[in-house]
Amino acid sequence: MFMIYLDHAAATPVSEKVLSAMIPFMTESFFNPSSPYLPATKVRAKYETAKNQIANFIGAKGNDLVITSGATEANFLAFTSVNDVIRARVENAPKPRILVLETEHASVLENAKNYDFEVIRVDKTGLIDLNDLKQKLTDDVALVSVSLANNELGTIQPLAEIAEILRGKRFERLKKGITAPLLLHSDASQGLALIDLNVARLGVDLLTLNAAKIGGPKGVGALYVAHGVRLKPYINGGGQERGLRSGTENVAGAIGFAKALELLNGHQSAKRKKYLHLVEILKQELKSAKVEPLFLGNKKHQLANFCPVSFPGLDAERLIFALEDREVYLSTGAACSASKGEPSHVLRAIGLTDDEIKGSLRISLGILNDEENIREAGKIIREEVDREYERTK
Amino acid sequence: MFMIYLDHAAATPVSEKVLSAMIPFMTESFFNPSSPYLPATKVRAKYETAKNQIANFIGAKGNDLVITSGATEANFLAFTSVNDVIRARVENAPKPRILVLETEHASVLENAKNYDFEVIRVDKTGLIDLNDLKQKLTDDVALVSVSLANNELGTIQPLAEIAEILRGKRFERLKKGITAPLLLHSDASQGLALIDLNVARLGVDLLTLNAAKIGGPKGVGALYVAHGVRLKPYINGGGQERGLRSGTENVAGAIGFAKALELLNGHQSAKRKKYLHLVEILKQELKSAKVEPLFLGNKKHQLANFCPVSFPGLDAERLIFALEDREVYLSTGAACSASKGEPSHVLRAIGLTDDEIKGSLRISLGILNDEENIREAGKIIREEVDREYERTK
Repeated sequence: MFMIYLDHAAATPVSEKVLSAMIPFMTESFFNPSSPYLPATKVRAKYETAKNQIANFIGAKGNDLVITSGATEANFLAFTSVNDVIRARVENAPKPRILVLETEHASVLENAKNYDFEVIRVDKTGLIDLNDLKQKLTDDVALVSVSLANNELGTIQPLAEIAEILRGKRFERLKKGITAPLLLHSDASQGLALIDLNVARLGVDLLTLNAAKIGGPKGVGALYVAHGVRLKPYINGGGQERGLRSGTENVAGAIGFAKALELLNGHQSAKRKKYLHLVEILKQELKSAKVEPLFLGNKKHQLANFCPVSFPGLDAERLIFALEDREVYLSTGAACSASKGEPSHVLRAIGLTDDEIKGSLRISLGILNDEENIREAGKIIREEVDREYERTK
Repeated sequence: MFMIYLDHAAATPVSEKVLSAMIPFMTESFFNPSSPYLPATKVRAKYETAKNQIANFIGAKGNDLVITSGATEANFLAFTSVNDVIRARVENAPKPRILVLETEHASVLENAKNYDFEVIRVDKTGLIDLNDLKQKLTDDVALVSVSLANNELGTIQPLAEIAEILRGKRFERLKKGITAPLLLHSDASQGLALIDLNVARLGVDLLTLNAAKIGGPKGVGALYVAHGVRLKPYINGGGQERGLRSGTENVAGAIGFAKALELLNGHQSAKRKKYLHLVEILKQELKSAKVEPLFLGNKKHQLANFCPVSFPGLDAERLIFALEDREVYLSTGAACSASKGEPSHVLRAIGLTDDEIKGSLRISLGILNDEENIREAGKIIREEVDREYERTK
């Protein structure tokens, strides 16, 4: 099948190796990991090994992870840490607040809406405004949630710096006698394939991982939970995942996730180089279009596989359908918000004009791309941009 | 591999056909169903078709279903319907109560504990005490949760009769001017393979389904939600599943679930006959053991594939390990509670003595059984029962 797929931020294919690792746990090793007999306890052991492998990828241990049905659920679970603060707080103490970056994915923003929350501003490249964070980081803040990299722009946030600011704040609070926790959560759904992650180095307390964006199966994610962070169990039952998330374990899913990470391990740097090169080829081609492209995001702090771009004045939705006819597949924003036809809150947050938002494409490279199909994609996108320009001028 | 698996109530293998149906949606049709381009909208269509197929199996429509990560999550979601009643109730009105059968699975009982709840008694066969239900069904009850069939005994509950009692109560309440909803939830995790289900005929408002118990993948379930029943969305985000359950859809999982149901369709009656015959063979063999077996559950209202049995005075855990050595795999109770080593609350509820509980095995037949291996299993179990009897007498 001829097809050029440029939407790896929305979904990735499960590789042959990942699939091969998963299948035995659906067929001959189908046992319930909680059953008492040997074949089942072997499945339990394999499941725990997979959890350890996933955890090790971010410098943690299997026990620090809760396997979930995806990143959205992991984000939801992370926010339950605030309930603990609410429960623990002294009578008449201020209600705990949450700070979230204004460009977060809906699964973070919608959760925040269940609490008292405020957004932290970003600059024109989508980078967090650290001064805004410092200003809003008052004594009543219980949780700060900043994604590792934005899902529309690929802008990578300075998590270590953010963690440092939070550490300073914690120290200041302690001196005042305020012992309420201040936690840092990060949704690392994007970027796992390209950034070498270590929870200790990053200084995060809660980290969301997503299998579906890195060649693992859909419906599998994980939440890293640092020692001492208390979550509120919501799905109750058999007590799996240390009581935090009941339900028979999706063994094949966890095994597939671990395998997908194993295939990434140590290749992040080479992949970054490859994608930087491909994105450069694409950009050069797009620059020769009849509408000058506005490349979005932060040149220095951007996921190497991202090439978000606006052709101001054009209608990106029309472009996407024209490109679809030529079997080039990309999207305008996050798949889930794009399907609702709402203008991207991310592009609005970085101050784009309506014309710039309307003309925006999200291009995200990945496993299905090589130099040949990227050259071809660049040519096709340029041609369709030109055609659309001619039609509307 | 020689192995006799007698624990189909805990887990089932994914069949070749189900796997073949799933794989394309992990590999070439991996697209995010919310993406705008044709291959992705085709995936969306296939996903919706799968949901329709799952729904049709129980006489409902795709839109009535919320696909979840399993039965435990579906049970959790079902209980959020009570929050709506709590929100809607008049000041000073009594707090809504929940009634659950005392033999429900942990995923129902643990959820009930988040609310004001009371248990409905069962008789010695595990069948609901309808008089107890009637007595406890006061005007402040918002939800009644009774599983279709018990996961340890296989006892099938008279859901249509229960629904009729609730209908009567609703009518009575309306005459008094009480308009607060009274809903019937049923966890149909067990029995889906053998009972011809129809939500309208059963009269349930909420029904939990589980793929993993019928040859579908783990990590996939569904909740049927009748028109007019309002749930409280908990996993927030992209707004999938009509906003009730956000997160990129587990497309392959839903497709696998639909395929597993398709393979069952119309074969329930033949399967019942087959299992009744196999269970009879097994019982005959066990009756010749040196300890008289006590067959548990309700002879008339029992899942045909269930053969729960107690050998009073013996240690079932020792038996299970002895049987494991001979590659006969079965368990003592629900896999998740058995792994915690607690005595079964189900067996306690039906009034078994400590000796009877301690000697209890859960035998559940399924796809991996035939007359030959059931005869062999019966012989092996009898031999091990005799050996254990000799050791302890």
